Amino acid sequence: MVGYHVAIAGATGAVGAEFLQLLETRDFPLASLKLLASERSVGKKIRFKNQDLTVEELKEDSFKGVDIAFFSAGGSRSRQFGPIAAEAGAVVIDNSSAFRMDPEVPLIVPEVNPDDAVTHHGIIANPNCSTIILLMALAPLHRRWPVRRVVVSTYQAVSGAGASGIVELEKQNRAHLAGESIVREVFPHQIANNLFSHNTAIDDSGYNEEERKMVKETRKILHEPNLAVTATCIRVPIARAHSESVNLEFADQRPTVAEATEALAAFPGVIVIDDRERNIFPMPLDASGRDEVFVGRIREDISHPNALDMFLSGDQILKGAALNGFQIAQLLIDRNAVKGAR
Amino acid sequence: MVGYHVAIAGATGAVGAEFLQLLETRDFPLASLKLLASERSVGKKIRFKNQDLTVEELKEDSFKGVDIAFFSAGGSRSRQFGPIAAEAGAVVIDNSSAFRMDPEVPLIVPEVNPDDAVTHHGIIANPNCSTIILLMALAPLHRRWPVRRVVVSTYQAVSGAGASGIVELEKQNRAHLAGESIVREVFPHQIANNLFSHNTAIDDSGYNEEERKMVKETRKILHEPNLAVTATCIRVPIARAHSESVNLEFADQRPTVAEATEALAAFPGVIVIDDRERNIFPMPLDASGRDEVFVGRIREDISHPNALDMFLSGDQILKGAALNGFQIAQLLIDRNAVKGAR
Repeated sequence: MVGYHVAIAGATGAVGAEFLQLLETRDFPLASLKLLASERSVGKKIRFKNQDLTVEELKEDSFKGVDIAFFSAGGSRSRQFGPIAAEAGAVVIDNSSAFRMDPEVPLIVPEVNPDDAVTHHGIIANPNCSTIILLMALAPLHRRWPVRRVVVSTYQAVSGAGASGIVELEKQNRAHLAGESIVREVFPHQIANNLFSHNTAIDDSGYNEEERKMVKETRKILHEPNLAVTATCIRVPIARAHSESVNLEFADQRPTVAEATEALAAFPGVIVIDDRERNIFPMPLDASGRDEVFVGRIREDISHPNALDMFLSGDQILKGAALNGFQIAQLLIDRNAVKGAR
Repeated sequence: MVGYHVAIAGATGAVGAEFLQLLETRDFPLASLKLLASERSVGKKIRFKNQDLTVEELKEDSFKGVDIAFFSAGGSRSRQFGPIAAEAGAVVIDNSSAFRMDPEVPLIVPEVNPDDAVTHHGIIANPNCSTIILLMALAPLHRRWPVRRVVVSTYQAVSGAGASGIVELEKQNRAHLAGESIVREVFPHQIANNLFSHNTAIDDSGYNEEERKMVKETRKILHEPNLAVTATCIRVPIARAHSESVNLEFADQRPTVAEATEALAAFPGVIVIDDRERNIFPMPLDASGRDEVFVGRIREDISHPNALDMFLSGDQILKGAALNGFQIAQLLIDRNAVKGAR
């Protein structure tokens, strides 16, 4: 069996830690692993398969001999070092938004549009976390019953802002319970005992960047440039799984609840949790640490003859980020699209 | 000036406490105040305007000489004692869902449908908290630009389950931070670091009771029996203000953002918080303890030519319950509809 030389750029972040965990615990033909981060983390030891790996500085010459480079070090580092890594012969699987809308860069959810991956020119983009979680429930329905409009409201975990977001929620929760003053470092607003509109820039349309990502990336992944999508993205005081309230309008007759449930349950990576009698539905606590996206509250929308409502929860760091990237790497290996594919 | 004899049934609950606070701090022509509760709380002293009032047992003969009776003691007590209080000559302002859909009982948001209040036969219903908060933003728009469909997803505070809901969130937060096991007494699922579909019964339509209330009560209050409404009601780990993500489809041309903002800002009880540059929008933390419903994120829906999106936060115990009931009492007094109106 061939082994692959892998690098993680941003190895010390929340998503980087999850890449390490996946490479350690899942089946993957690993030949070597290089951990890269900014200068600040250089020299840090990270335990991996009973060895201490030393974090190296992310530099222009970091990618010699690397086959697969997972990037989760932010957009500016991706823009700076992604093309260099690709030029050096690696396939870059980039978790930032830097290249997602580049027409030359495939934007991949492996269960949804795997065939797009092999068209890469050295860089593949991992979609936005909220987009991936939405797509896992949207795609299996859209394939059989074309969707014409999506209205989605999110309940996004603090992990979307990285490990420091999780720490900030915990610190603020402690301060809140102790009646002490709340310190804000990561988020512009208090997150403990609060929620707020996603703190990315609003443009003239009135949508913030997170919402625009959901709209544009959904269209690109589904190859539906005109799909009607509106999103309202809200940050909630929850550690690491996102939830989404989704209303889907179908172009023609909507599926029955039974048909939709069957299509969703048959889709790899989806678990239907929809126990109306016992009131058990997707919850972020249950979805945390799980690979699958949970889908439930599937029901005919009483306000529209062709619409369905549903509710989703999915782990933001796993399927929303590292797991999806890891699955892209596995897909490329399966399709023989790592070396020499450029 | 005439003074009114007032009773609070359910004086020891979260909403009862807020009624007391309102009667103490706001302008109200109070002649006497009687505090009623279940046997368990009888004899408890509650401080009110420098006096100790003693909680009495809620009984059939509790309402002699009472002009206005605020009920917030749950649906079964309202059903049992509401008609008795009305028969004894009081106007009952009932915070439970017991009478809301009774065609003989007005369902009132004073800013929205005040004229309905004077048609009462001794009982007036206070709407569901999520419904009131929605109506405060929906009504001023619907009046000028008829709305044909509402898609709403809620972010509901634990106070909707009463004072014990707030205590449960706090206890679970402490246990969660200490790494101790989580005890569930009020909610069927953990609420700290979690959210879940509103834990009311789901019927054959797939909607839970909270969602059905939002649909039916909205139609009744607006006198629009055919208004299309779909709601997804979610409980979030926040103490006492609800938020709502709202998509409105208008029957004809939608208002511009400027027109909608102007209509909302001019509506009594609404504050528009919509600072796109500084990313400041309605937040439950800011809305807590406030009379007004905060409205923001007002924008043209890019997925539909006649729709707008917006986001709301409102105090669940104040405008969502006690304040709205208190305002109903003030309205009845203003319209001379307390005594002899039956």
